[in-house]
Amino acid sequence: MTKKNAFYAQSGGVTAVINATACGLIETARKHKDKIGKVYAGRNGIIGALTEDLIDTSREPASAIAALRHTPSGAFGSCRYKLKGLEENRREYERLIAVFEAHNIGYFFYNGGGDSADTCLKVSQLSEQLGYPMQAIHVPKTVDNDLPITDNCPGFGSVAKYIAISTLEASYDVASMSKTSTKVFVLEVMGRHAGWIAAAGGMASTEQNELPIIILFPEVAFHKKRFLDKVKAMVKQHGYCSVVVSEGVRGRDGNFLADQGLRDAFGHAQLGGVAPVVANIIKKGLGYKYHWGVADYLQRSARHIASKSDVEQAYAMGKAAVQFALKGHNSVMPTIDRISNKPYRWKVGMAPLKKVANVEKMMPKSFISRDGFGITKRCREYLAPLIRGEDYPPYRDGLPRYVRLKNIAVRKKLDTSFKVK
Amino acid sequence: MTKKNAFYAQSGGVTAVINATACGLIETARKHKDKIGKVYAGRNGIIGALTEDLIDTSREPASAIAALRHTPSGAFGSCRYKLKGLEENRREYERLIAVFEAHNIGYFFYNGGGDSADTCLKVSQLSEQLGYPMQAIHVPKTVDNDLPITDNCPGFGSVAKYIAISTLEASYDVASMSKTSTKVFVLEVMGRHAGWIAAAGGMASTEQNELPIIILFPEVAFHKKRFLDKVKAMVKQHGYCSVVVSEGVRGRDGNFLADQGLRDAFGHAQLGGVAPVVANIIKKGLGYKYHWGVADYLQRSARHIASKSDVEQAYAMGKAAVQFALKGHNSVMPTIDRISNKPYRWKVGMAPLKKVANVEKMMPKSFISRDGFGITKRCREYLAPLIRGEDYPPYRDGLPRYVRLKNIAVRKKLDTSFKVK
Repeated sequence: MTKKNAFYAQSGGVTAVINATACGLIETARKHKDKIGKVYAGRNGIIGALTEDLIDTSREPASAIAALRHTPSGAFGSCRYKLKGLEENRREYERLIAVFEAHNIGYFFYNGGGDSADTCLKVSQLSEQLGYPMQAIHVPKTVDNDLPITDNCPGFGSVAKYIAISTLEASYDVASMSKTSTKVFVLEVMGRHAGWIAAAGGMASTEQNELPIIILFPEVAFHKKRFLDKVKAMVKQHGYCSVVVSEGVRGRDGNFLADQGLRDAFGHAQLGGVAPVVANIIKKGLGYKYHWGVADYLQRSARHIASKSDVEQAYAMGKAAVQFALKGHNSVMPTIDRISNKPYRWKVGMAPLKKVANVEKMMPKSFISRDGFGITKRCREYLAPLIRGEDYPPYRDGLPRYVRLKNIAVRKKLDTSFKVK
Repeated sequence: MTKKNAFYAQSGGVTAVINATACGLIETARKHKDKIGKVYAGRNGIIGALTEDLIDTSREPASAIAALRHTPSGAFGSCRYKLKGLEENRREYERLIAVFEAHNIGYFFYNGGGDSADTCLKVSQLSEQLGYPMQAIHVPKTVDNDLPITDNCPGFGSVAKYIAISTLEASYDVASMSKTSTKVFVLEVMGRHAGWIAAAGGMASTEQNELPIIILFPEVAFHKKRFLDKVKAMVKQHGYCSVVVSEGVRGRDGNFLADQGLRDAFGHAQLGGVAPVVANIIKKGLGYKYHWGVADYLQRSARHIASKSDVEQAYAMGKAAVQFALKGHNSVMPTIDRISNKPYRWKVGMAPLKKVANVEKMMPKSFISRDGFGITKRCREYLAPLIRGEDYPPYRDGLPRYVRLKNIAVRKKLDTSFKVK
């Protein structure tokens, strides 16, 4: 058995374009059937490997695989499951290798963020120790845009585009209503540690079409007076403003602003978002009428308005992963390397996993304006190409035609069950 | 002075396509310069008429007016300001007529929902009494879809499409995550009195692509046990589910579910949405991990994914309003009359304002499934054509190119100021 099969799994929070990566990976593997046998996908991510619940992607027609390119979320299921360190839980890694060996898998493609890069690296290391060497390639994905070395992460550009457009549209709305009604619109966006997504809200305002937008970054401690002064000044000048607030904003005491200790009428703790908290601060401090929204999953699943460059890069990462594997690489991750801004040019690069795993790329301070409420020109130059271009899915009867795969299971070969802790 | 000018104003909550109506109206008026002089728009709706703050739309180039077709929100500003009854506040109506007379305005086009239809009717009636007869035409607009006689209301179809697509996309997302993480996604949508918009969430599930979606309508009193049983059954069968909840859902005590008497750590009342309330009920009752979103303004300003039929109908209503005026009609509203479902065909009709004003069209009971959590086939047949077709705006650098008008004021002719109460 010289021809090995491949394993592919989606990890962590899904995105509008992670399936585009799966598409690029599977389509490219299918072009090299002389070298790569079948692509088995983990059902619900790495859990599928641990429980030997593999999906045979070769049972899907080419049209279904092609449709992954325009289908959001994780077609094979994802999971939030971080493998522990080797010392703590060698049992899991050994199980992975056993499953891979049983199914003649020689390529491990792991599609995720920082945590999965770490897992990928460990699988590669342990497989050698255990005498069943695997080529482990990490494929980047995260709306948080926090992987190092790569210029940006597939998934982020589409969220950024969605937030920029939503901020633009909601700003037009509140502008229309501001004379007698709503003066401030507050939009809560994802980003617990870094303000990349919140920053995208600032892109709604351009030189040709300036809009009053205030951004609350997790990088900047919330200062109530400064914030209210800013809102007041914006409303005075423009009649209204929009506030884009990252879920991860903290007060100067270090606590999340969202965590206000809300209680219901019976004294039970209630979980709320940060948007209503900020809206209430505005109401109490300035008396303005407000509206607020929480984009939540809508922002990362909005394939209907995905960024074209994001889709292209997501596909390219999947394709590059297979090409790297065919060239014999191991413990690496394809990257997006920016060559120039105007015109925007980029190429596929390669990063060793050792330099990727457990490294978080924060937003540069130079991307946040001096007053802490906006983005700088440098930030705009960085974000601009990532939200560029539209890549509409096909529609039927008014709805996008997103595919659902058959996801047929591979017959199990091990007679041992495995309990995921 | 036989040739009269026209007055146009936008009223109440704006939509993704109310500017398409303005576009249809102004473009059609411009084609009949022999009969209609200038179109003056009220700055911030009817308040612009009361304060003699009129916008001269003739100062806008044809390209800017054309761009209104793909620009969301109210380009001239809207307002939430309901004129009182004639007996209570004759002063305001007399002021309106005085302003219209001063600017030689003979056509009153009022673009809004039920309240503005009532205002429109009164203006028409009073103008005759005061010896300055006006042709008053109401132009339908409301995301609430609650105007009578017309089959549907411009603005609704695009919200419905947005909610259907967002529910579809978020359902794919939670499906991917459900094995180890989020099992339920809760989406709060508009609709304080009627469940039209919530119903649209049900359109995400189709015969070809069935999805577990639970709808909470304002028409159905919230029954906690039945709801939790339904969620539990859905999650058991599918592994996950989505809940689309109307902001107007009430408990069996008649109170809004959103109004839970939330208090912050200091005991101050906090305003929250209904989505976190429903999410907390699920968490407490079933222990499922959840996510929730609140679409708020995003849903009604999402011109980027407007329904094509909605845009066409919105434009047609503006065009018809002018044509009705040219034919000498008064106290009427153009309507959308459905001729057939398959294929979907409709035509412009006409309704007398007396039959429109102060009449609210509720969602038929036959549109809600027997268990109260879904939509029926009849509802689907009604909604299907309204969300059909895409009408993408043009883009530049990744953002829709929404126009901002110059909105140049008409020189005032009255030397009296007027205070809006």
